[in-house]
Amino acid sequence: MTIEDTRTPASGQTGTNGVNPESRDGEPQEAGKSIGWHKAYVEGSRPDLRVPVRQVHLTNGQSVTLYDTSGPYTDPTADTDVRRGLAPLRESWITARGDTEEYAGRPVRPEDDGIKHTSPRGGLRNLDAVFPGRPRQPRRSRDGQAVTQLAYARRGEITPEMEFVAVRENVSPEVVREEIAAGRAVLPANVNHPEIEPMIIGKRFLVKVNANIGNSAVTSSIEEEVEKMTWATRWGADTVMDLSTGRNIHTTREWVLRNSPVPIGTVPLYQALEKVDGRAEELTWEIYKDTVIEQAEQGVDYMTVHAGVRLPYVPLTANRKTGIVSRGGSIMAAWCLAHHKESFLYENFEELCEILAAYDVTYSLGDGLRPGSIADANDEAQFAELRTLGELNRIAKRFNVQTMIEGPGHVPMHKIKENIDLQQEICDEAPFYTLGPLTTDVAPAYDHITSGIGAAMIAWWGTAMLCYVTPKEHLGLPNRDDVKTGVITYKIAAHAADLAKGHPGAQEWDDALSDARFEFRWEDQFNLALDPDTAREFHDETLPAEPAKTAHFCSMCGPKFCSMKISQDIRREHGGSRAEIEEGMAQKSKEFADAGNRVYLPIAD
Amino acid sequence: MTIEDTRTPASGQTGTNGVNPESRDGEPQEAGKSIGWHKAYVEGSRPDLRVPVRQVHLTNGQSVTLYDTSGPYTDPTADTDVRRGLAPLRESWITARGDTEEYAGRPVRPEDDGIKHTSPRGGLRNLDAVFPGRPRQPRRSRDGQAVTQLAYARRGEITPEMEFVAVRENVSPEVVREEIAAGRAVLPANVNHPEIEPMIIGKRFLVKVNANIGNSAVTSSIEEEVEKMTWATRWGADTVMDLSTGRNIHTTREWVLRNSPVPIGTVPLYQALEKVDGRAEELTWEIYKDTVIEQAEQGVDYMTVHAGVRLPYVPLTANRKTGIVSRGGSIMAAWCLAHHKESFLYENFEELCEILAAYDVTYSLGDGLRPGSIADANDEAQFAELRTLGELNRIAKRFNVQTMIEGPGHVPMHKIKENIDLQQEICDEAPFYTLGPLTTDVAPAYDHITSGIGAAMIAWWGTAMLCYVTPKEHLGLPNRDDVKTGVITYKIAAHAADLAKGHPGAQEWDDALSDARFEFRWEDQFNLALDPDTAREFHDETLPAEPAKTAHFCSMCGPKFCSMKISQDIRREHGGSRAEIEEGMAQKSKEFADAGNRVYLPIAD
Repeated sequence: MTIEDTRTPASGQTGTNGVNPESRDGEPQEAGKSIGWHKAYVEGSRPDLRVPVRQVHLTNGQSVTLYDTSGPYTDPTADTDVRRGLAPLRESWITARGDTEEYAGRPVRPEDDGIKHTSPRGGLRNLDAVFPGRPRQPRRSRDGQAVTQLAYARRGEITPEMEFVAVRENVSPEVVREEIAAGRAVLPANVNHPEIEPMIIGKRFLVKVNANIGNSAVTSSIEEEVEKMTWATRWGADTVMDLSTGRNIHTTREWVLRNSPVPIGTVPLYQALEKVDGRAEELTWEIYKDTVIEQAEQGVDYMTVHAGVRLPYVPLTANRKTGIVSRGGSIMAAWCLAHHKESFLYENFEELCEILAAYDVTYSLGDGLRPGSIADANDEAQFAELRTLGELNRIAKRFNVQTMIEGPGHVPMHKIKENIDLQQEICDEAPFYTLGPLTTDVAPAYDHITSGIGAAMIAWWGTAMLCYVTPKEHLGLPNRDDVKTGVITYKIAAHAADLAKGHPGAQEWDDALSDARFEFRWEDQFNLALDPDTAREFHDETLPAEPAKTAHFCSMCGPKFCSMKISQDIRREHGGSRAEIEEGMAQKSKEFADAGNRVYLPIAD
Repeated sequence: MTIEDTRTPASGQTGTNGVNPESRDGEPQEAGKSIGWHKAYVEGSRPDLRVPVRQVHLTNGQSVTLYDTSGPYTDPTADTDVRRGLAPLRESWITARGDTEEYAGRPVRPEDDGIKHTSPRGGLRNLDAVFPGRPRQPRRSRDGQAVTQLAYARRGEITPEMEFVAVRENVSPEVVREEIAAGRAVLPANVNHPEIEPMIIGKRFLVKVNANIGNSAVTSSIEEEVEKMTWATRWGADTVMDLSTGRNIHTTREWVLRNSPVPIGTVPLYQALEKVDGRAEELTWEIYKDTVIEQAEQGVDYMTVHAGVRLPYVPLTANRKTGIVSRGGSIMAAWCLAHHKESFLYENFEELCEILAAYDVTYSLGDGLRPGSIADANDEAQFAELRTLGELNRIAKRFNVQTMIEGPGHVPMHKIKENIDLQQEICDEAPFYTLGPLTTDVAPAYDHITSGIGAAMIAWWGTAMLCYVTPKEHLGLPNRDDVKTGVITYKIAAHAADLAKGHPGAQEWDDALSDARFEFRWEDQFNLALDPDTAREFHDETLPAEPAKTAHFCSMCGPKFCSMKISQDIRREHGGSRAEIEEGMAQKSKEFADAGNRVYLPIAD
């Protein structure tokens, strides 16, 4: 494999000319400020297979390669324009397979954007907002056969997408193919979303993080949502779910999809409900199906489907402390009760499988009955639905549809393991995708933390992807800072789990940072940090001067008490190996005393 | 038991006249703003045994009683003055025992405040800073016998301190006595710190949180440290460690102790090192002992003693990634190497026990060789020291000295349980007191979170007290906001562990908050939150108007998609119990349809 970097030959010195993740927000790079990383690409077996990485250049001449989700936006050689969208990286791979074809597609209607026929503005779309990028026609399976990565994997084919993730995860392509074929991993990649850099979700791979964005009836705009998506991926979000519920829902999604380097997930039910003016009982299978096709044609990579909320389970929630807290779950429960009928999602699940298989949309089978409080964790309603999700998973696999399973929610620590163990057993090891879980209810404004605890644990035990929770959970819509805090918190949980699982190579990152810490290479510590900007800012609050970044102490202990300094002195004074130290210790002790017994730097009084 | 509240009869209506935790910072209470809690006291078997609690008044007329660490500062009927110090609550209990006596005490010397004889200002103390409060003489054991809660508990005596914590923890006094007698819990309460509200640290009780404060050579002042202490306890810190290392170290501690309602811990080694101008090799047992006595006379409740860092263990750290990261550990290692002698703390441990027993200072046996990186976790150096701590624990118990054991550090999740299991086995179930552990090294600026994850887990498995980590760990000194963030994060970890351990009553708090959430009682949610101010602020960012706080929806979903609302409708429409629901569902379904099938509030388009 070769690594191609994005630095121009003229400015190729290490550690000074990579791209600053902040610099594309209009904040000028500070002159003379060392930028210690840059975007690079690892080339696979063919020139059009270029896997992005983040190369961190250390001041000791070494470099560390980190997984990178930020897309072309952090590549100074890439020409990006949100009005044009990203380049369709996968297009040639998709067309080369010859199993899909373009077609006219479903016409976009005003109600797709939540413009109601009863509105005074009825029939008019917000044309200013329509995505102006390259014209495109949707694509689907040519003959109704599944065009999914699962179908290919089962046939023994290693697709370019599979090779891409193999390079990204540093495993063999055959491992990727095997895990997908066994249903233990998914590679969400709609044929209508050729812009993505493929990624994989499965317990044998790095734990992934999803960030939710989405405007609501109360607030936010298209621009904000696109910006939140690029912002979330810049900090490490592996996928993004667009949960918009208000106006311009179709158009917002188009902008997000055309500009997203990561798979996009949705909950089609939210949009379907908009089309019936929020009246759950007016939902029909036809309206829902039409919405799924609309979104599949746009390129949505995975869809949350709450098909496990069955009529007989609704009464199981009656005595719960917090009832049904999933929006999709409560909508389906209301529909079931209004009609006293089995869920139309459950009843039509096979037809839905056929649709998803024709675009390679991945199922994310929703946990509509997840617990919304500690009191409701692991109850009968929750596990009844899980058993149905196991049944649906097997049906989806028959149709060659990739499938993952969503999980809770609010769960105290001692009840977390039962969730992943049961899910793995019931759902034949399909990837588990959990929201937290939150380990206590008492800390609104800190639910990124209450849930980060549960997320780390459940990921250690086998959960493949974590849906982030921001500090605004239960209180309001996340802003830019909240999105960043949520993503960073969940990257911590995911990486802590990668370490605990013994994922090959995971600890190299920790080791590199700890080496930098021990050797007082402050700039390297910052550049290796999950959030270099905040780490640098916190350090500079107490010791702002430039020399402090090369100082062999920090503000916690000051120069006299620095334990790292003392440890270094011990190592320097007493040689490298334990045998040497033990052997020579008495002698060294004498020399140490002769040399003035200084383990601290003298400082001015 | 009776509950005595702090509200005056004239303004006794619920939820409007408790004390606002913010209001004592000079921020005026907003007129008309509902303050939903107040300080109250639960009286024990005698009138001078008044256990503080936080009574949260709900808008539905109920109230919730929460553990309270904030001291008299949140009691509007208490007359507090930091220049005078808190009232000596325990004084009559201590004197009534008749086993201690006042004595002249050790004279305070300039070097106690870090004023060096070689300094131009040598010999002058900062007299302006000297604590002006009531004159006091130190007190110690009358006859050299142990005056410790452990000695009393072993003799079968239930002290007022034990009864106080029994009320606080809602257990019987006999349970408290048994746990202390068995060495499974400590009740840190120096006879010279009569101001504290007693608390207990042990795995059968609520998990406790310690907050570190302390000026350093680089920054901060006496006033800041006292303010940080009261601020930390206001948000829930159960103990505070004063880790000051700079000037005015004695005087700062005096101010902190006289104003602290919680036990204060220190690391005497830091001050001893100041007395020898930072030259570790010049430390002697005499200087150390003098410092311990100085601090015991002031009233320090527990002391970290790094007596487990033995000479033969130092070479075990030579090949570590990050050497010795404990300040105390590295100082002792440097001393051992400089002299090529066994640690003077280890050698003189029995004499140290006699001193601590005479004041009831609790040991916190320091883990000087704790791992400072993921790579170094659970290594030979760490566990060699732990075995020595087990040996020292047994010696301390012979002298009737209460003892807890400090733990790491940086530990990946899969290696955490071994730490607590080994510690409990080796140290005869003495309380474990851990710093985190941090579950990854890669997130400087977020180490409250990397460590909050490990803290919650290790507490679930039996750790009795958690030492907080702030966002500034590894980067700088925590400011006021960092202290609050650290305490709140660790209260989350502690409470999550209480839930997971099934601590009686722990879940009532979550249940009350979840009930409020389900019923859209926003003010109750805020008032029950660990941090009401931030919860309210986050909510108001999106929906600031007062009516939004009674709205039956929130900004996440808006009025149409609210799952809580739908769940409520389901419950209302379909009766309470599952049998009723199942029986009547078909009929109800018809009525529901007849009534217009409205599960959402109609809203303006």
